[in-house]
Amino acid sequence: MYRTHTCNQLRLQDVQQEATLSGWVQRVRNFGGMTFIDLRDRYGITQLYFDLDLDAALCEHARALVRESVIQVRGRVRERSSKNPNLPTGDIELVAKSVKVLSPSATPPFTIEDQTDGGEELRLKYRYLDLRRKPSQDALLLRHRMAKAARDFLDANDFIEVETPVLIKSTPEGARDFVVPSRLNPGQFYALPQSPQVFKQLLMVAGYDRYFQIVKCFRDESFRSDRQPEFTQIDCEMSFVEQEDVLNMFEGLAKHLFKQIKNIEYNEPFPRMSFAEAMRLYGNDRPDIRFGMTFVELTQQAKGKGFPVFDAAGLIVGINAKGCGEFTRKQLDELTKFVQRPQVGAKGLVHVKCNADGSFKSSVDKFYSQDDLAAWAKAFEAQPGDLLLVLAGEDAATRKALSELRLEMGNQLGLRPADTFAPLWVVDFPLLEWDAETQRFHAMHHPFTAPKPEDAHLLDTDPGKVRANAYDLVINGSEIGGGSVRIFDSELQAKMFKVLGFSDQQAQEQFGFLMNAFRYGAPPHAGAAFGFDRWVSIFGGYDSIRDVIAFPKNNTGRDLMMDSPSPIAQEQLDELHILFNKLDNK
Amino acid sequence: MYRTHTCNQLRLQDVQQEATLSGWVQRVRNFGGMTFIDLRDRYGITQLYFDLDLDAALCEHARALVRESVIQVRGRVRERSSKNPNLPTGDIELVAKSVKVLSPSATPPFTIEDQTDGGEELRLKYRYLDLRRKPSQDALLLRHRMAKAARDFLDANDFIEVETPVLIKSTPEGARDFVVPSRLNPGQFYALPQSPQVFKQLLMVAGYDRYFQIVKCFRDESFRSDRQPEFTQIDCEMSFVEQEDVLNMFEGLAKHLFKQIKNIEYNEPFPRMSFAEAMRLYGNDRPDIRFGMTFVELTQQAKGKGFPVFDAAGLIVGINAKGCGEFTRKQLDELTKFVQRPQVGAKGLVHVKCNADGSFKSSVDKFYSQDDLAAWAKAFEAQPGDLLLVLAGEDAATRKALSELRLEMGNQLGLRPADTFAPLWVVDFPLLEWDAETQRFHAMHHPFTAPKPEDAHLLDTDPGKVRANAYDLVINGSEIGGGSVRIFDSELQAKMFKVLGFSDQQAQEQFGFLMNAFRYGAPPHAGAAFGFDRWVSIFGGYDSIRDVIAFPKNNTGRDLMMDSPSPIAQEQLDELHILFNKLDNK
Repeated sequence: MYRTHTCNQLRLQDVQQEATLSGWVQRVRNFGGMTFIDLRDRYGITQLYFDLDLDAALCEHARALVRESVIQVRGRVRERSSKNPNLPTGDIELVAKSVKVLSPSATPPFTIEDQTDGGEELRLKYRYLDLRRKPSQDALLLRHRMAKAARDFLDANDFIEVETPVLIKSTPEGARDFVVPSRLNPGQFYALPQSPQVFKQLLMVAGYDRYFQIVKCFRDESFRSDRQPEFTQIDCEMSFVEQEDVLNMFEGLAKHLFKQIKNIEYNEPFPRMSFAEAMRLYGNDRPDIRFGMTFVELTQQAKGKGFPVFDAAGLIVGINAKGCGEFTRKQLDELTKFVQRPQVGAKGLVHVKCNADGSFKSSVDKFYSQDDLAAWAKAFEAQPGDLLLVLAGEDAATRKALSELRLEMGNQLGLRPADTFAPLWVVDFPLLEWDAETQRFHAMHHPFTAPKPEDAHLLDTDPGKVRANAYDLVINGSEIGGGSVRIFDSELQAKMFKVLGFSDQQAQEQFGFLMNAFRYGAPPHAGAAFGFDRWVSIFGGYDSIRDVIAFPKNNTGRDLMMDSPSPIAQEQLDELHILFNKLDNK
Repeated sequence: MYRTHTCNQLRLQDVQQEATLSGWVQRVRNFGGMTFIDLRDRYGITQLYFDLDLDAALCEHARALVRESVIQVRGRVRERSSKNPNLPTGDIELVAKSVKVLSPSATPPFTIEDQTDGGEELRLKYRYLDLRRKPSQDALLLRHRMAKAARDFLDANDFIEVETPVLIKSTPEGARDFVVPSRLNPGQFYALPQSPQVFKQLLMVAGYDRYFQIVKCFRDESFRSDRQPEFTQIDCEMSFVEQEDVLNMFEGLAKHLFKQIKNIEYNEPFPRMSFAEAMRLYGNDRPDIRFGMTFVELTQQAKGKGFPVFDAAGLIVGINAKGCGEFTRKQLDELTKFVQRPQVGAKGLVHVKCNADGSFKSSVDKFYSQDDLAAWAKAFEAQPGDLLLVLAGEDAATRKALSELRLEMGNQLGLRPADTFAPLWVVDFPLLEWDAETQRFHAMHHPFTAPKPEDAHLLDTDPGKVRANAYDLVINGSEIGGGSVRIFDSELQAKMFKVLGFSDQQAQEQFGFLMNAFRYGAPPHAGAAFGFDRWVSIFGGYDSIRDVIAFPKNNTGRDLMMDSPSPIAQEQLDELHILFNKLDNK
């Protein structure tokens, strides 16, 4: 061992003891004849003391040390004259007797501090230095603790972790697969799994009863902000259960993590909301319920007063920004610009200020009387000093835009604090969604999701109306996970594939082994998968999932540290029998 | 819930209670008016009872149930008249009041029994049925318990589990990489990791101090018996440690698993043996030390007596098969055939029988006197009744062949029981091995392994003589894992790449980020990786690692259940800009 203690171990009780520490030079400070070094390791920081009078050569040596060098120091512990109450080791220091440089450091390309001067590209390139910063270390330690706590909970509840394969078969449903050419079978490919969905269902057919896995999944997406081509799921499945059993079990998992990691105890069940209600009240299937500001519809009462925009709208809907009645013209203009951004997509924003004297001032005074606006205010349960913000247009697009506006107002009003958590189950999702482009239904969750038994008859007549036994766990407006009760009957599964536009042959080719498996006694089963990266980032208060991934790719899918993806040797291409279609290259 | 209890929960104390069970029909037995069904789930088996007199229709229904169908049964618990002491539920049975078939089964393609009638190909195709068999369930449960125990131990010892990426950069060193074409970067590839080696070293540079991960790794090998293209490692790394620290830590891990899983307590340290000694005494760097039968060299004393084979040999070496002096001519002929198999590769086998009367009978009596043979017997510490088996030839090949013969004799003599465990550290491996084909040195472990400091000066003059701070953990003749102290100095690392025949540019291209990382303060570090599949198979007494993998590939790398690898859609190929070199196809 290169040390007798870590940098977070020595305390007052160790005074007079000899100790050897190893770590990184965090900071060198000189005060006349005294030199102090903060020595850092994963566990903490211990102050080293060098005295010019006692050992001039050693002190000079210490002064010359470059930040981030790795050193080994032998010395004796003594009580500090000026203690640091913010440091667990702040009562003591190590009076150095010898120093050995184990590995000198060149000057790092950015400062290794909580607030660094390095931009993200630079930090990703030198990720091994970025990972030295405390926010990075906190993130990976949090991630480890959450994985451990999840495993402990699931193990204690009779789940067994089963590793499913990474080299599987390509199935075109869903996002794009990453594929892996097979050298031994030229022209053939493995695919990387988008999820272990099929395998966990087969494990239920195989009688494993309760399965989980913390597992890497892969999606070849055209990268969007805060997506990663590889990501991690807590993937679970249970047999002989109904939706209520599954919700209770995974609520138990969430509560266990809240308690173990955040020390927050939930004594009440998490609230539940149907998809329909979430869309109606929040315009969003993953509402942030840390704050209210729910939607109020004016479609009936605001039409027919001669305002063309409203008269032409399928939906007129608004929110009450409480206490914002004094917003300036500039603030209101900025809100209008916000809703007009292409990502939000509204044409304009109508506002109504509820004045202190009980009167109203709106951007549509021309069309609406004070009585009209008073009726609106009543619908919004508005008080003097409130501000009504109203959008109009096509139903779905308008709800989406108002949801964005609501979240923006939540941010502006400080109603979304990172250290407050509002978990929510969203249930009763539609089974299918219509895709206008391909003119067919897609599975909203995936093609193995069971319809609600009471809606199953609609599969033949009105598939878009069928609700699923599907559920999402939402925390603070982020979808943490979701799942469904599965189909376990090969006939119903075949019908589902038909509704999704699969030919018998396609269904057989891609999922034949699953439908086959259902022929040999399949138990009723249900499950869920949780986005582990997202969950960690929410618990840790990080902005991006990149912050909680040890070696993330950037937003275009590149690993800047390894410089990957990259060309491979011609020899490798030849072995795979691969040529590139150069004409096609962009 | 479809059940009130599992099939391993009801006991005598539950008699008279109402219960609902769900599970698979294991067996239906009819005795006159009585029908018994064994109902099975992951947890166990409970007997169901149906009485023709009580409910004829229900009893007829039960009799018609097909094996492996999934049913739900409601009934009342009663004490059995004829108890089954081999079953935890053997004191009771459930008198059925109603039965619901949740999912009927077609006749399975093979019997779901411990000893099945299905061949391996068929069982792999229907792996979800094969996984219902108890040996399969035991294997996956064991695997889960071992992973859990390993994580608990490592977590308790301050290791944190960090997920490293699966989409990395191809590095030609070692076995072949699987590669993943990048759609967004035509002509460029990710590679799947053969191990997280570089990442764990970077995590040490980043100050994480103690890392582990139970992680999938990938090798595109031309398949050999009992290799899998994807396999699982327990991967570990520690900072500020020397070899002794690492051996103690991982010996602790192994002892923890022995205790937790096999209830075997090792109070003494595991034995250690140098590579040189292992080769000298066992002809093998992973000796099975459950039994002795160590090598005895006769090169000096057996030469020069006119026996041409021995006179021409670089090495004459043998083992003493104790108590085999009565082996028949047939048995000896079979041993000769064994050593002449191409996989073993010896030309012939010399034997000497130590007779009860003190005389000797050998296959080379013509060349060696009774005195000569008595001297051999003395060297072997042989007793009357023993059998000496001697091989001769080129040094390395002869040791290897004798090692095979020794293991075969161990098998024949029952000296290798699956439930006896003999762990061993093999240490002081050579740093390099010469590859005659490419006429250059290869790293015996990998290019990041540190030479022993006392041998480092030989790197310039006699690289083949340099020993490494490398170590393997061997159990019962299988390499369970291994590791090394790492180089943490960029200059020494650069020199190592040079010895391995990398140009500066190649080294920089492939490992530049690692050598760069060493420039910013790298701690001394060391680690190990354990073959988790192998470890589970040894603890469980399974023949093949396929037995302990949920969804294994066969020996040619195919997943017979999914029928993968497989062709992908032309659309996918086009998006990847890939053409296949048809001329080249075999």
